[in-house]
Amino acid sequence: MSKPYAIGVDLGGTNLRAALITREGQVVKKIKEPSTGLAGGDVIQLLKNAIDQLMSPEVEGIGIGVAGVLDRPEKRIMISPNIPPLTGFSFNDFHYPVPVYVENDANAAALGEACAGAGRNFKNFVLMTLGTGIGGGIIYGGKLLKMAAEVGHMSIVADGKKCFCGNNGCLELFASARAIIASVIEALEGGAESLLRECCEGKIYRITPEDVYKAAFEEGDSLSREVLREAGRYLGVGISNIINITSPDAIILAGGLIGSWNIYVDEAIKEASKRAFKSIFQKVSIIPASLGDEAGIVGAASLVFNPPAD
Amino acid sequence: MSKPYAIGVDLGGTNLRAALITREGQVVKKIKEPSTGLAGGDVIQLLKNAIDQLMSPEVEGIGIGVAGVLDRPEKRIMISPNIPPLTGFSFNDFHYPVPVYVENDANAAALGEACAGAGRNFKNFVLMTLGTGIGGGIIYGGKLLKMAAEVGHMSIVADGKKCFCGNNGCLELFASARAIIASVIEALEGGAESLLRECCEGKIYRITPEDVYKAAFEEGDSLSREVLREAGRYLGVGISNIINITSPDAIILAGGLIGSWNIYVDEAIKEASKRAFKSIFQKVSIIPASLGDEAGIVGAASLVFNPPAD
Repeated sequence: MSKPYAIGVDLGGTNLRAALITREGQVVKKIKEPSTGLAGGDVIQLLKNAIDQLMSPEVEGIGIGVAGVLDRPEKRIMISPNIPPLTGFSFNDFHYPVPVYVENDANAAALGEACAGAGRNFKNFVLMTLGTGIGGGIIYGGKLLKMAAEVGHMSIVADGKKCFCGNNGCLELFASARAIIASVIEALEGGAESLLRECCEGKIYRITPEDVYKAAFEEGDSLSREVLREAGRYLGVGISNIINITSPDAIILAGGLIGSWNIYVDEAIKEASKRAFKSIFQKVSIIPASLGDEAGIVGAASLVFNPPAD
Repeated sequence: MSKPYAIGVDLGGTNLRAALITREGQVVKKIKEPSTGLAGGDVIQLLKNAIDQLMSPEVEGIGIGVAGVLDRPEKRIMISPNIPPLTGFSFNDFHYPVPVYVENDANAAALGEACAGAGRNFKNFVLMTLGTGIGGGIIYGGKLLKMAAEVGHMSIVADGKKCFCGNNGCLELFASARAIIASVIEALEGGAESLLRECCEGKIYRITPEDVYKAAFEEGDSLSREVLREAGRYLGVGISNIINITSPDAIILAGGLIGSWNIYVDEAIKEASKRAFKSIFQKVSIIPASLGDEAGIVGAASLVFNPPAD
């Protein structure tokens, strides 16, 4: 007899999120614990504690979305840039009385949006997560393609700066929250005028992407506007590459940066409209994700109810 | 009762190829006609003549691979960069007593390699066609993904030169045969020393990629070697982007430029090995296609025997 709930986990970097979720994607009970800066063993302990709190005879299985590149057959984390101590860990060492499924966190978020979010009306879409880094997930014919979908590590400036991943000129270096903050700090250090100097009691290293957006949008700060536009323009380069390769019905944008939609994303759409093949671009909807922080846990849980074919 | 043959057509630009092909991908009878510089109506007439020559009651259907971006439900060519007059043409206006299937030519070549060529042993691969331009096709789980796969029009130098497609800094501008010839001519016009000056009776505008490869490989001409290596390095940037996004089992390389494997492709593999995620790269085979000119017609014919699901 199939059971009514799955445990969905999102081990994305800053926080561990875990929840009891129904077949319809409804979140019944939710746990959130900060996971930044923990050692690998502590992250695993945090994960086990969360699962223990949610586990019951009503649970069909456990789905885990984790930041990094996975070896799927081995359920092993090959690289975990945001939680380095997890590199090499295999979920086959996990022993629970129910099946455990593992996916990349952005892929899980794409599945979540496909099942219960902004992707419900599209058979083919690419989800991009726009946060500290940039990730992706590709849905085709309503199903997740088991691809790395590391769209943030596509080089868009072949001889550009070195990325921690080993590549040069990755999209993430130009269009992520980390890139936006780095540009702002560089400009302020270089003496640029900006309302951001007054933010965070003058401690410019504490400026957040939200501060930049607020200064840009509410106060018309020109440095902030310029930095967001420039990041958006590069995002548009990445989006047009994705469109020319995958010709999707939609690009669905998720993550903290979509709060800056009307400067950053608008600029990206404008740039992509100039660059992508016209006949493909005009059929692509570029829209925000709708599940927010819950996309990852909902998608991870959906792995349990619809296990991916091999 | 199913019939033993399909007609496979490759309408790729320079030539029209058409053939009678068995279910196993064996070419029984083949036609090749030059199609460069013809008006749109003349190309269609050439195509009809070829089909008429091959048609018989033993034919199950017709598969056509055509250069350009397609509207699949309408069977319409949205853009045909190599045969501009075909833009807008719909194969729904074709009337034959058997079904007609249409695919992009590089996608058809990918299918051909999947059915009967170098892709037979891989469930997931990306075919790249390296010729005048650069095209692609993505096979996933043994099936063709109905994506544009226009990998040659992925921008790898965001603010690079303008491409005819509207984008800037496309891979094709740095790594195609057209790019190689343009670099050689530019260098020769600029006074560079090279054995290529003696080629083509001094008519440098007639130099072909084969001339460049011959000068590089057989005679150690340094300009030729440098140009091929530089094009290969950029090809490596494109390949690493494809690997980070699609994490395939193989990248299969087709087209005239693979004749320069041991300079151009070797350099590409070296560059990709430095750039792509290590854990993904080490599982990717980078190998030549095996069907040569016949990949497109074999793949187009396979559309007839295994019609793609909608």
